[in-house]
Amino acid sequence: MHRRTFLQAASLAAGGAVAGPAVAAARSSGAQGRGALRINGARVNGHLTELSKFGRNPQGGVSRVAYSDADRDGRAYVMQLMRDAKLEVSVDAAANIWGRRRGSDASLKPIVIGSHIDSVPEGGNYDGDVGTLGAIEVARTLGEAGVALRHPLEVVCWQNEEGGLYGSHGATGVLAAQELAGVSVSGKTIRDGIAFLGGDPARLDSARRPKGDAACYIELHIEQGGNLDKEKLNIGIVEGIVAIVRNDVTIEGFANHAGTTAMADRHDALLSASRFVEAVNRIVTASPGRQVGTVGRIQAFPGATNVIPGRVECTLELRDLDEPKLRRLQAEIRAEAETIGARNGTTFTFRPSSTDHQAALSDPTVRGWIAQASKALGLSTKLLPSGAGHDAQNMARICPMGMIFIPSIGGISHSPKEYSTPQDIENGVNVLLHATLAADAA
Amino acid sequence: MHRRTFLQAASLAAGGAVAGPAVAAARSSGAQGRGALRINGARVNGHLTELSKFGRNPQGGVSRVAYSDADRDGRAYVMQLMRDAKLEVSVDAAANIWGRRRGSDASLKPIVIGSHIDSVPEGGNYDGDVGTLGAIEVARTLGEAGVALRHPLEVVCWQNEEGGLYGSHGATGVLAAQELAGVSVSGKTIRDGIAFLGGDPARLDSARRPKGDAACYIELHIEQGGNLDKEKLNIGIVEGIVAIVRNDVTIEGFANHAGTTAMADRHDALLSASRFVEAVNRIVTASPGRQVGTVGRIQAFPGATNVIPGRVECTLELRDLDEPKLRRLQAEIRAEAETIGARNGTTFTFRPSSTDHQAALSDPTVRGWIAQASKALGLSTKLLPSGAGHDAQNMARICPMGMIFIPSIGGISHSPKEYSTPQDIENGVNVLLHATLAADAA
Repeated sequence: MHRRTFLQAASLAAGGAVAGPAVAAARSSGAQGRGALRINGARVNGHLTELSKFGRNPQGGVSRVAYSDADRDGRAYVMQLMRDAKLEVSVDAAANIWGRRRGSDASLKPIVIGSHIDSVPEGGNYDGDVGTLGAIEVARTLGEAGVALRHPLEVVCWQNEEGGLYGSHGATGVLAAQELAGVSVSGKTIRDGIAFLGGDPARLDSARRPKGDAACYIELHIEQGGNLDKEKLNIGIVEGIVAIVRNDVTIEGFANHAGTTAMADRHDALLSASRFVEAVNRIVTASPGRQVGTVGRIQAFPGATNVIPGRVECTLELRDLDEPKLRRLQAEIRAEAETIGARNGTTFTFRPSSTDHQAALSDPTVRGWIAQASKALGLSTKLLPSGAGHDAQNMARICPMGMIFIPSIGGISHSPKEYSTPQDIENGVNVLLHATLAADAA
Repeated sequence: MHRRTFLQAASLAAGGAVAGPAVAAARSSGAQGRGALRINGARVNGHLTELSKFGRNPQGGVSRVAYSDADRDGRAYVMQLMRDAKLEVSVDAAANIWGRRRGSDASLKPIVIGSHIDSVPEGGNYDGDVGTLGAIEVARTLGEAGVALRHPLEVVCWQNEEGGLYGSHGATGVLAAQELAGVSVSGKTIRDGIAFLGGDPARLDSARRPKGDAACYIELHIEQGGNLDKEKLNIGIVEGIVAIVRNDVTIEGFANHAGTTAMADRHDALLSASRFVEAVNRIVTASPGRQVGTVGRIQAFPGATNVIPGRVECTLELRDLDEPKLRRLQAEIRAEAETIGARNGTTFTFRPSSTDHQAALSDPTVRGWIAQASKALGLSTKLLPSGAGHDAQNMARICPMGMIFIPSIGGISHSPKEYSTPQDIENGVNVLLHATLAADAA
């Protein structure tokens, strides 16, 4: 509590499901009273606790991978919460859940808010969950306060974000046959998983939203990095989602007996791989900026204590908002790899990965609404990139997009140790509420 | 043929199983005629071809791992060859095969010669086989020439050399319960494997040879390194079998999201592991000598493209004849690892491996016999260490030991590409013959 400027929200005192003083204020004073509107922090945190029971693991996190029974059951809970919030619930052909609320002006496009509830294996209780349940809480708060928006409001719960943003990809693009045939962590193919969750893989076209079909998309999410926590700030305003360049790297040398082959006669693929890992780190950190470079996977073949590695397979991943910079770094790394290989008679091969993606910038107007909402709520902010991918990057292709980050304690994510405080969650949902109101007023 | 001084042996011309002119010379001129005695090169190479059928793999090598059906069948072939050579065949309780020939002086200890015929998975046709069939050929040549040695001659075929010198360990030490319970590549435990090959795991004591129980042990083997081939030399006289120091190394960092964790905030275990691999190479090559250092196995956890490795497991192996030097190198590497770990907040842990072993020096007198035999045969020689382990290192504990190396083309071993020329094999077996005669005359 001592580390940040906390919002003393009326809803904290009110609690429960009954309308507190803020709601009463909103009802009584119309558009002007909307400024005093606050979501119910205790309620949304309670819902997060309830959701954490679906797929709970012994470490206190969840393994609620897409298309598992836990995912299906968690989604049923989400749909119940949507109905409690008086939203009209439907599941599209790509298996995304939509909760709709009418607007007063039939000519206006919907404001879309939401996130996902599937997790990585051995994941945490905040990644995705906060944005999904937060969006429902916003709708419920609006409903309880009797606030009529001009725009329709759509709350979305995307399916299979962690596996590769499949739900939002289905809603904004085309899920190719090859993608549908891919096997997810659950063991099911994407196609079977969509059917399992109530979608219809044969009618995916019906789930597609054309460009311009929404007024805007705003997603609340945990930062998953340590910037906000380290700087003791309340809210991150996302500049954009970084581009990712991935390569599968193979280093070929020559396997031989580790006892009988002189050091000078070796073509040790692991020695070259090690120099490569060091070079990636050196090149990525040599220039200013927030770019990151990672070798996350490595294997040496044949992989025995007494055999000089003849081949190494590893990965290279580079991320930054600035794509030309990424391409420059990649070229520099490849040139350095060639030099490294030449030193001991090994060769490097780089294969681009199919999981590369371009940077998705947030919309300056949406950023402005988030900044304005944060300021009005007395919350400190920082403009920062999202190093992780999000469904928002797909929605950015069809409408103006913005993202709200709340602090991740210690920057830990994709782990049972992932944690955001109840107060930070309440702050984030309030910012989402007021950014939504600002979007509606725009 | 152009690359070496080749021995134009009489046996080459003679071929087949009938005694050639050299044999006749030996018969007629007694001890003096022994100098002209030659083994039958065509015959021993033919036997090698026959043996290669047991466990043959599509790449042209063999997968004749200990305790497999191929191993059992290959051993039956070896026993038949021993009987053809008029040796008295028995299998000891540790499942080693012995072929015995009487000596003329009952007070003298036996001269032991031999090797093994089990292979690594996807191995070659020379490692072990040359020394085993070569020793049988020596006995057969002596028998055909009617040469009566003063010493008994014992030809041994050790079981499970590749898995860890189990047969010779059983004959010279104690196979502990823990070792017997270990599972070999075949899937059988060592205990069950010994029984499968006709040994008796309950009576292992009976297989043990006390210190001083043999006059000497001489093993012919392929070099498995590239020294002889590179320098165009015929015969390697082994100085000793190097000591091996092995460590299992764990590097602990902190796993985190590769997109959201700034470079400066990382505790990347793979970056430290890479600096470690580079340091091992740098430190091992920095001082003069023939020491080798290898990191052969590596794995990063969790091992995903988009996760910073939080833990790396790898191996360290150092080999040299000079054990104090190995300890110095190990200490230097560990100190460097501590510095590397401190750079990015990771920690190194080194666990000694149970497979370490001390250096086993060959006996200068036995070396002298090998040198003398090579010289008399017009073969060039070089004194060199064995970087690989051999059953000879166990025999060195109970009697004077010597080893004869022949060239491995390209230094390739433990591979279907392993190759030694028929002429080099013939040369090696002739050296084994004359070293045996010198040992008998000593």
